[in-house]
Amino acid sequence: MLHNILEAFSVVLASASPRRQELLQMLQIAYDIRISEIAEPITDDDPAIQAMNHARNKAIAVAQPSNKSELVVAADTIVVLGKRILGKPNSISQAQEYLQALSGKEHTVITGLAIGNQGCYYSDYECSLVQFADLSTDEIISYIESKEPMDKAGAYGIQGLGSQFIRGIQGCYFNVMGFPIHKFYTMLSRLHKEGKI
Amino acid sequence: MLHNILEAFSVVLASASPRRQELLQMLQIAYDIRISEIAEPITDDDPAIQAMNHARNKAIAVAQPSNKSELVVAADTIVVLGKRILGKPNSISQAQEYLQALSGKEHTVITGLAIGNQGCYYSDYECSLVQFADLSTDEIISYIESKEPMDKAGAYGIQGLGSQFIRGIQGCYFNVMGFPIHKFYTMLSRLHKEGKI
Repeated sequence: MLHNILEAFSVVLASASPRRQELLQMLQIAYDIRISEIAEPITDDDPAIQAMNHARNKAIAVAQPSNKSELVVAADTIVVLGKRILGKPNSISQAQEYLQALSGKEHTVITGLAIGNQGCYYSDYECSLVQFADLSTDEIISYIESKEPMDKAGAYGIQGLGSQFIRGIQGCYFNVMGFPIHKFYTMLSRLHKEGKI
Repeated sequence: MLHNILEAFSVVLASASPRRQELLQMLQIAYDIRISEIAEPITDDDPAIQAMNHARNKAIAVAQPSNKSELVVAADTIVVLGKRILGKPNSISQAQEYLQALSGKEHTVITGLAIGNQGCYYSDYECSLVQFADLSTDEIISYIESKEPMDKAGAYGIQGLGSQFIRGIQGCYFNVMGFPIHKFYTMLSRLHKEGKI
């Protein structure tokens, strides 16, 4: 299990996200936080490649390769509706527009993961589908008034008030929350078995 | 949204489950807890009917119909593998047998919901599919040593260390956790709109 594999390492989480921290705590993993200020520009590239590249860049930015017992873990989550990537809304009207666009539709959430140390990083990604309920304008306005949407990609949080609008998902729930736990476990188990970490 | 509809009521949660309490807190719903000691026998009946009946019985057992502002909320979660219902394991060897049976397979989680007051209750249920990873005997033993499986239906908790074994789900994640939030929201909105609560 994860906490058994990781007890030999100083785990560094390269993320300020309270959701990711909460999940590592749930997994009984001890960690330190080290955050970089690198930008994550959205481009026209494949979203999975972008998410993995962002995660890898976050990991590299905080790593101290001289520390051999260190294992850096980074993640980047992207919300995709059709061909459009929805980042964090930069205004109330953009949050309203995002939620209107998600209403009654299925969208994709992709999280890129990067794990590494000593200058060597491994990346992978997970992809889940999320089915949003039909939302009325009143529901959207009421949700935005709660302030929950403003700091979240796609303008919603599945682990908060937004949960009531989610009809269902297909895939890993924790991926939608921002950290694909089963993917992390399988990556780490494989790297450990192969002697790469 | 839920907290807007519910602010007119004294919500009573008829459940001792810390997971259900955590979800009501996440939804910013104020509640009291009132727990009954009624048994929940597993029978050969349709699991969805059983889950709804158990939830209704839990609600009725704690309700105080004289209190008109009271709204009792109860839930009962059943794990079904094929035609077999997996309850809480009653021994370590039964937990091991359950986890071995779930390994590499898809199973169903059904939660029955009951909402009501003044002697009148409304029930519904939600159904989700859960895909378990292939588990080795070592993984199963290590998981049982964590003590997490022993008080949970099906011998696992999706919101704990068990999360690393879940490849994915199809449906409502919160239903698997024990409280189907979107179903609760749609039920409550409908009952409220129809003037039934």
